[in-house]
Amino acid sequence: MNVLIVHAHPESGSFTTAMRDAAAQTLLEAGHDVRISDLYEMHFNPIASADDFLERANDEYLVYALEQRHADANGLLASDIKAELDKVVWADLIIFSFPIYWFSMPGIMKGWVDRVFVSGRCYGGMRFYDRGGMKGKKALVALTLGGQPHMFEADGIHGPLTDMLRHLLRGTLGYLGFDVLQPFVGWHVPYISEDARSAVLDNYRARLLALDSEQPMDFPSLNDFDQFLRPKVHQSA
Amino acid sequence: MNVLIVHAHPESGSFTTAMRDAAAQTLLEAGHDVRISDLYEMHFNPIASADDFLERANDEYLVYALEQRHADANGLLASDIKAELDKVVWADLIIFSFPIYWFSMPGIMKGWVDRVFVSGRCYGGMRFYDRGGMKGKKALVALTLGGQPHMFEADGIHGPLTDMLRHLLRGTLGYLGFDVLQPFVGWHVPYISEDARSAVLDNYRARLLALDSEQPMDFPSLNDFDQFLRPKVHQSA
Repeated sequence: MNVLIVHAHPESGSFTTAMRDAAAQTLLEAGHDVRISDLYEMHFNPIASADDFLERANDEYLVYALEQRHADANGLLASDIKAELDKVVWADLIIFSFPIYWFSMPGIMKGWVDRVFVSGRCYGGMRFYDRGGMKGKKALVALTLGGQPHMFEADGIHGPLTDMLRHLLRGTLGYLGFDVLQPFVGWHVPYISEDARSAVLDNYRARLLALDSEQPMDFPSLNDFDQFLRPKVHQSA
Repeated sequence: MNVLIVHAHPESGSFTTAMRDAAAQTLLEAGHDVRISDLYEMHFNPIASADDFLERANDEYLVYALEQRHADANGLLASDIKAELDKVVWADLIIFSFPIYWFSMPGIMKGWVDRVFVSGRCYGGMRFYDRGGMKGKKALVALTLGGQPHMFEADGIHGPLTDMLRHLLRGTLGYLGFDVLQPFVGWHVPYISEDARSAVLDNYRARLLALDSEQPMDFPSLNDFDQFLRPKVHQSA
């Protein structure tokens, strides 16, 4: 497999970074190819703007998604976007490695998503969910957080973590057509012992070596919707 | 009321910007004070990093939330964060004005959330949800998107929009203690007529003049959880 790890943490000595390195080493030792985009180290620009296009289809009025399509089709994407998009195309598995900030990715990684998953190539028109441009690739969100599992049970104070991450797991990665694996979560990280941290890394390594046996998350199929994206069969309430 | 509009759109002539201006004008004419943070115009830096603190409590290892607390308590926040935090403290209502990108905010606004809602002042320890630091303030998400309402019905292809926005409405604004109003949504914006756009602006203006009569969204109360954040009463399944 070709594996891209997209990583964002403002502290290079963080446990999240240790998870990233454990993943890279484990996957390399298993014979996979691994590339890492360390967004802080790269000083990645997370601001989607008109500067993302060497030339524009419409200089008067910016419709970002339309300019993405035009620029991708005509070799006019900014070089930093092009470099990341090439890695995305190359990858069979993309791991998103980050500390949870406000039940989502840090801003620098959100901007990577905004800029790199370009309309046209990665999704567009009726090409989303099970017809998305990333079909055939896997995605794994590997995150750390301060909370504990009981806070994310059905009756927990926050409810299920996968519900909090719906915009990312379903609305972004599922929408793009990835086979989205269940997130790998480093729970309660700031408060746990070195032994507990080692156990998290061991669990992560073991999981990475058995990804092939995992069933991806379940998202809608466009086959169940008509050309106006209305359900083909209306179920009674 | 003091109203802060936090706005992010890469096209200054966008309909989202027209919504922002309609909101500002309507609220000013109704006698409120209005300030606007136009993140693209400000070239706002969305990357949470060690540079956000003039001095650090721990120079060896960055724990971002702990440095936020230390810096805020000691007047050591970077000036751009301090300026935004002062506006947040001043505001009775914050409107988040943006085009939906991947069922969330554009990266530049996500970074504003990461950097400006500082730990300690805005939340922390047991100060979240109905004990959050923003208690007594209202928050309104006012967004535009390309989709149509039927795609976000219970049996629609994406499911309810408020479920997709749970990380923001509940996990961010609700967590901070805001009274979170139902989002105002400009549907199908790239595809609708000028008349339909005018109708959206009229509906938005009317809604802004009647916010006081709205019931905020319902989120958990910490009164229902113990000191370990376990539910006080376990319900049978």
